[in-house]
Amino acid sequence: MDDIPSSLQKIIQSKKSIKEIGIDKDLAKFGDTVTNFIYSLAKSVVLGKLDQRKVSRTILSTALKQSKMKIYAKTRSDAHGLADTAEALIGYMYCIGWSLESMAEILIEILKNYNLNDFKIEKLGAIQAFTHILTKIKNYLLTIFPS
Amino acid sequence: MDDIPSSLQKIIQSKKSIKEIGIDKDLAKFGDTVTNFIYSLAKSVVLGKLDQRKVSRTILSTALKQSKMKIYAKTRSDAHGLADTAEALIGYMYCIGWSLESMAEILIEILKNYNLNDFKIEKLGAIQAFTHILTKIKNYLLTIFPS
Repeated sequence: MDDIPSSLQKIIQSKKSIKEIGIDKDLAKFGDTVTNFIYSLAKSVVLGKLDQRKVSRTILSTALKQSKMKIYAKTRSDAHGLADTAEALIGYMYCIGWSLESMAEILIEILKNYNLNDFKIEKLGAIQAFTHILTKIKNYLLTIFPS
Repeated sequence: MDDIPSSLQKIIQSKKSIKEIGIDKDLAKFGDTVTNFIYSLAKSVVLGKLDQRKVSRTILSTALKQSKMKIYAKTRSDAHGLADTAEALIGYMYCIGWSLESMAEILIEILKNYNLNDFKIEKLGAIQAFTHILTKIKNYLLTIFPS
């Protein structure tokens, strides 16, 4: 059996465009776990206390729109579909070698400026943090899949 | 702000015994995300297809008993409490520097011998895989916290 990085590379090697990544259901499911982990890790580090948080579809769908990546979702997607696309893109980055810790660091850059003990402010911070990472992902993927 | 490894070290540095780790609620919550991620990753690699799976409390509580680590849970814990202890221990290992990929590799050693497309067989495999990693965790922690 291949090691983990080679296995993941093989699994996602067929992808030929950012849109193909954005609408992949398996990537969305796997990416959901990645997304929750990197956010829980980032929040724990900022708070100095272990925490766990499921990232809501409102946060992810808003961040996808703000990062101008709605074009990579299915046409006429609702918030659920847009969140799936955000998760698929994040899951893909893990598969091509971005570490979870490096992705959490990107979220931390933004989250550290917000009071995460206040639920409403945390939501705003999370939207900005995911907009930030999705924008970085877009810039990176456009170098691999020039449109 | 500290980097991620230093922050996590600081957060868990007060732990003085395996039991103290096993009954920590924050570690259990954080460890839940770690556990689901390492299992989803391991299963994806074995199947050669991305997957996502929430690990059930039956799997984790049975594995905790089989690895003879029930003594690190609260006395008179039910399956839910025992699963929390398994998750807390797994979460702790990530905090002290075991990578998620190395933990997934330990699960893969066992899971690769099971047909994960069959739900019942997968459950048996998952119990053995978590028994395997918890036993390794116990052996490691006993070198840090000799009883």
